[in-house]
Amino acid sequence: MSSNSFGHLFRVTTWGESHGPRIGCVVDGVPPRMPLSETDIQPWLDRRRPGQSRFTTQRRESDTVTILSGVFEGVTTGTPIALVIANEDARPKDYDDIKDAFRPGHADYTYFAKYGVRDYRGGGRASARETAMRVAAGAIARKILGPGVTVRGAVIQIGPHPIDRARWDWDEVARNPFWSPDAEIVATWEEFLDGVRKRGSSAGAVIEVVASGVAAGLGAPVYGKLDADIAGALAGINAVKGVEIGAGFSAAAMAGEESGDEMRMKDGRVTFLSNHAGGVLGGISTGQDIVARFVVKPTSSVRIPRRSVDRFGNEVEVSTKGRHDPCVGIRAAPIGEAMLACVLADHLLRHRAQCGSGDDAPAQ
Amino acid sequence: MSSNSFGHLFRVTTWGESHGPRIGCVVDGVPPRMPLSETDIQPWLDRRRPGQSRFTTQRRESDTVTILSGVFEGVTTGTPIALVIANEDARPKDYDDIKDAFRPGHADYTYFAKYGVRDYRGGGRASARETAMRVAAGAIARKILGPGVTVRGAVIQIGPHPIDRARWDWDEVARNPFWSPDAEIVATWEEFLDGVRKRGSSAGAVIEVVASGVAAGLGAPVYGKLDADIAGALAGINAVKGVEIGAGFSAAAMAGEESGDEMRMKDGRVTFLSNHAGGVLGGISTGQDIVARFVVKPTSSVRIPRRSVDRFGNEVEVSTKGRHDPCVGIRAAPIGEAMLACVLADHLLRHRAQCGSGDDAPAQ
Amino acid sequence: MSSNSFGHLFRVTTWGESHGPRIGCVVDGVPPRMPLSETDIQPWLDRRRPGQSRFTTQRRESDTVTILSGVFEGVTTGTPIALVIANEDARPKDYDDIKDAFRPGHADYTYFAKYGVRDYRGGGRASARETAMRVAAGAIARKILGPGVTVRGAVIQIGPHPIDRARWDWDEVARNPFWSPDAEIVATWEEFLDGVRKRGSSAGAVIEVVASGVAAGLGAPVYGKLDADIAGALAGINAVKGVEIGAGFSAAAMAGEESGDEMRMKDGRVTFLSNHAGGVLGGISTGQDIVARFVVKPTSSVRIPRRSVDRFGNEVEVSTKGRHDPCVGIRAAPIGEAMLACVLADHLLRHRAQCGSGDDAPAQ
Amino acid sequence: MSSNSFGHLFRVTTWGESHGPRIGCVVDGVPPRMPLSETDIQPWLDRRRPGQSRFTTQRRESDTVTILSGVFEGVTTGTPIALVIANEDARPKDYDDIKDAFRPGHADYTYFAKYGVRDYRGGGRASARETAMRVAAGAIARKILGPGVTVRGAVIQIGPHPIDRARWDWDEVARNPFWSPDAEIVATWEEFLDGVRKRGSSAGAVIEVVASGVAAGLGAPVYGKLDADIAGALAGINAVKGVEIGAGFSAAAMAGEESGDEMRMKDGRVTFLSNHAGGVLGGISTGQDIVARFVVKPTSSVRIPRRSVDRFGNEVEVSTKGRHDPCVGIRAAPIGEAMLACVLADHLLRHRAQCGSGDDAPAQ
Repeated sequence: MSSNSFGHLFRVTTWGESHGPRIGCVVDGVPPRMPLSETDIQPWLDRRRPGQSRFTTQRRESDTVTILSGVFEGVTTGTPIALVIANEDARPKDYDDIKDAFRPGHADYTYFAKYGVRDYRGGGRASARETAMRVAAGAIARKILGPGVTVRGAVIQIGPHPIDRARWDWDEVARNPFWSPDAEIVATWEEFLDGVRKRGSSAGAVIEVVASGVAAGLGAPVYGKLDADIAGALAGINAVKGVEIGAGFSAAAMAGEESGDEMRMKDGRVTFLSNHAGGVLGGISTGQDIVARFVVKPTSSVRIPRRSVDRFGNEVEVSTKGRHDPCVGIRAAPIGEAMLACVLADHLLRHRAQCGSGDDAPAQ
Repeated sequence: MSSNSFGHLFRVTTWGESHGPRIGCVVDGVPPRMPLSETDIQPWLDRRRPGQSRFTTQRRESDTVTILSGVFEGVTTGTPIALVIANEDARPKDYDDIKDAFRPGHADYTYFAKYGVRDYRGGGRASARETAMRVAAGAIARKILGPGVTVRGAVIQIGPHPIDRARWDWDEVARNPFWSPDAEIVATWEEFLDGVRKRGSSAGAVIEVVASGVAAGLGAPVYGKLDADIAGALAGINAVKGVEIGAGFSAAAMAGEESGDEMRMKDGRVTFLSNHAGGVLGGISTGQDIVARFVVKPTSSVRIPRRSVDRFGNEVEVSTKGRHDPCVGIRAAPIGEAMLACVLADHLLRHRAQCGSGDDAPAQ
Repeated sequence: MSSNSFGHLFRVTTWGESHGPRIGCVVDGVPPRMPLSETDIQPWLDRRRPGQSRFTTQRRESDTVTILSGVFEGVTTGTPIALVIANEDARPKDYDDIKDAFRPGHADYTYFAKYGVRDYRGGGRASARETAMRVAAGAIARKILGPGVTVRGAVIQIGPHPIDRARWDWDEVARNPFWSPDAEIVATWEEFLDGVRKRGSSAGAVIEVVASGVAAGLGAPVYGKLDADIAGALAGINAVKGVEIGAGFSAAAMAGEESGDEMRMKDGRVTFLSNHAGGVLGGISTGQDIVARFVVKPTSSVRIPRRSVDRFGNEVEVSTKGRHDPCVGIRAAPIGEAMLACVLADHLLRHRAQCGSGDDAPAQ
Repeated sequence: MSSNSFGHLFRVTTWGESHGPRIGCVVDGVPPRMPLSETDIQPWLDRRRPGQSRFTTQRRESDTVTILSGVFEGVTTGTPIALVIANEDARPKDYDDIKDAFRPGHADYTYFAKYGVRDYRGGGRASARETAMRVAAGAIARKILGPGVTVRGAVIQIGPHPIDRARWDWDEVARNPFWSPDAEIVATWEEFLDGVRKRGSSAGAVIEVVASGVAAGLGAPVYGKLDADIAGALAGINAVKGVEIGAGFSAAAMAGEESGDEMRMKDGRVTFLSNHAGGVLGGISTGQDIVARFVVKPTSSVRIPRRSVDRFGNEVEVSTKGRHDPCVGIRAAPIGEAMLACVLADHLLRHRAQCGSGDDAPAQ
């Protein structure tokens, strides 16, 4: 039991604070003899890296990852893989102002209530900087899932502006700074976010993550439900306030005969005629795309002054001047992808443990 | 690691199938010297019990719980508490029709894909019958949380009909068969569900659960986040497709200065001026009400015939004739409460382990 | 994390007290489609059952096991298997004398020191009665290991009288009431134990357990060491004060060139020329027999009066009159076997999770 | 679940290979606001450091530890503490000879059997180098236990030469290169080990570890037994083949009335008249000294040629020329202390979780 580890058999333990010397993680349970090097991980980190447009924080980090163990002569050895990234652009002085004050919407107050002490520099352990290690671990998870499984994410709403799903194009995601699958919404979002930035405000977002190529049979019917683990994983990303699988909250207004996805045979295989389940039934994957969404609240750090208190019980005003994402949700897409990949890799190993993986395994 | 256990220090392991002889659970980690008897548990089970109105399944179960261990002379001894409930109205014959067919929207297909065998009687292990043990465990969790903490749930939407939150009255919940906190919506829901039943269809629902009196400081900033654990716990209830904490998906369209709850001092204590966070910031409780919502999809068992396949690869039509809830969400309120109580009890023990509970503990 | 569960992927959770209505366990993680019924479990329980000779406790228990879940139409379904045994000959009144006194050598004092309350009837949870469930779980573990793996145990010393290893005959074990593999020591032990019983004293014993047919490759090099898990499992049996693997404590006086088992090829396979390692090198199985020994201290309940204190701080004399094994070690052999089988089954699943089990798996 | 983590609430995850760039660990669950710096850890590492006498390996490592996270302004923050040590004197070339051969008594063969690949440089992950991180973690565990608890270790036998326990003097341990508490045995051991070295052989040893000042009540009666966890922890140290608690294997020949430690009141407190239990009864600490012993087999690397095979199935002779401890047991004393401290710290937090730590806690 650990509050800094994620997963069971594919198990990630992260460490490090926003403005400490380094952040890192240990990835345990990785199968042996799997080719792995930094070049398998770095591209995914590069996608999450800050400072790539005016819509993300201007903190400059190369986020160069180094593998310190667990890989020998180009392949995994079955031992723990330690990854480390240096914090290059840490500026602890930026935070002297809020050393004693609790920023509204931040973990400042609760962290202090719990531990009676806090590393106030950039949120310390509660910083989104930790998510770099999730992306790194997710890159290893993808290798375990193999080339047959694709895990992708897209931003589908910023502020009050959702995309038009009819225009969904996965290729578009890499072409704009917003991870939008809808080319036409980009101009709207740019204008909207420029206004948000100028006002010293911030905006929320909704992200959708999709895993394709996942075999039927991952998960378990009661407490190891695949969708419950995905929901917990996505809800565990900083600033997330809600998670949906498949039809999500729209399922409330559906009729039962509409909600349950019908099945037919096609080319000798079971085929579903719709995917309101989001690829998971009774906690176990169906073989369809696994579809999940999560909402990221607006960045809590805003320039607009806000009422708060400090650790001595004084009432204060807090206005954040540091470097921040006006919409932290934009960079959440690769993190969501990584968490989904980690859950799937963990469940793949869990399934293999109980049900085997050879010719005796059913239906996969 | 277990797919049939829940929680870490307050740890619940359940067992049993819908139409087996008994269902049961083992509750481990309970503090010693805590008064406990069946009368602390039975009332919560009675609230979940089927057959209390025409809107729930007509299966007749007394759901009488027996404590088999862990309690001596009226108090807990610190050893595992085994609870058992007999299945009285099991009718395995009802399921002969769907022995080989996979019901759309059910775990039938995925269960078979995973294990290559299934107990088809009433969903076997995937049945909502298992949730009786969650409610029982939740009753013990409430005892650990103590009388200062209240965990309540209400149905806030059935089908397309949400309640009017302005009319919220907790006392109303016990007065109608729908767990509605809004007296005026009841007639609408009755009429709607009677239509649903007549058509042989089913309906979805949204449930809200609220914990009051929880101290600030429960949870952890990264992977042991209180809200992530709540999200995972609620998403792990049968048929749940989405979960929200506090503002939930509405946070996407909020401005940052609106979303972050401001703080002032009141009577020497930190007070929040709003609760968009739903009582959790950075994964740690704030001391405000913890507020979560989840959506339950329409019951997958409908009389309306649906296209499906069977285990031999034949295309079939499935029409469910057994006893089922037309809106399984109605009975999900006590289950949601129970899961929330279990998460809180677990985190209370986890907090006490790391941070202590005496005079040296900060801010609680 | 639980103090009443054992194993990780093959996971056993036990519950129940010596003089409660029932004892039971939940066995989770069992692979599906494995034939299983009570007749697979009962014979192992019968071997452990008390009252089979004058050298074991006269408590009369049929120890009839019932499977309550997890098996359908004769095969496991992949869901938790609940087992239960009734306590038939519980006589709580026998313990009124020691209700407040702490018996020397027993858990009475420490249990009270920890929990501030105790079920004094027959040791409550600390009773060896709990080990019946270990034996039952071990029977399921054996099924997972398959017919190629044999797990056997023998008593190799009672009091100061060790067997002569040159006379070791596994078939002899079932022919005497002491689990002795050496027919000639039996008379010595009978005479010795009759004397012990008459004096109201008790005796210790050493047990050896051996697993044959275990493939090379189970375990892990650092904290999931197979031998460390075996040592922990055997040391966790009631009254055990020491554990050895292979050469054990005699390794201290060996020379390095003697201790390290040499290897040669035989019929195209790696063969070891000795087995001082006890079948485990660097925490991983070698493919040789896994050999472990453990010592069971003399039964703490003796008729000879002993000095003690009670819960009120009074000095008292304690003389135990209940039904007890004069040498509890005799019945420890089947328990040691069961724990070894459970560890092996757990590691088999753990190995399969990380390293697979098909044609791609090396060297097994 | 992880094969590279140790403990539950006080949880240590180590990583790194003998000849990789660095080794490190993450220590999670540490209470907040505890003063901690490298100077609390370094002295314990210095005691384990190689090259301090001719009786230990000549590998030169400063073993300088750096804290990378979890400490802010001199105190722990409740977040994971990452520690790292550089490998300075790694000489991977030394191992080219045994790149393909399996050294008798080493993990070479089993590691390859499991993973199908191995980092052959100095044993890779199976190297005793990993134990440096155990010692570092143990230093943090000691801080959690507080100044009232002392954890000490001593070598009590080398080869066939045991100490005379009547001459036990804890102060002597630091005065000789063997961790001997008996000054008079030192000359014997020197002479013996010089002979061993000259022959190119190696020797085994027995180590005793003692924890004083541990409160009664740590542990649990069934699977979380304090002594079982200690046994597993000590058996998990490289090359350990046996473990004893208290009377250990000598308990077999004791009479029950001798074995069970009697109790009397002294100055208003319960006092034991002997300590055959080794400070643990029924898996729970008694408040007496916790006493455990473990045997370390002779170093498997010997210059004397030995028969073996290589990975291609060829029969070979192996003679190790690298830098090795002639008696690896000598340096095992600080490792044994560290493991004992880690187990106790973990159980302290576990106890606090279930039973609290304030005025309401019994008997501590």
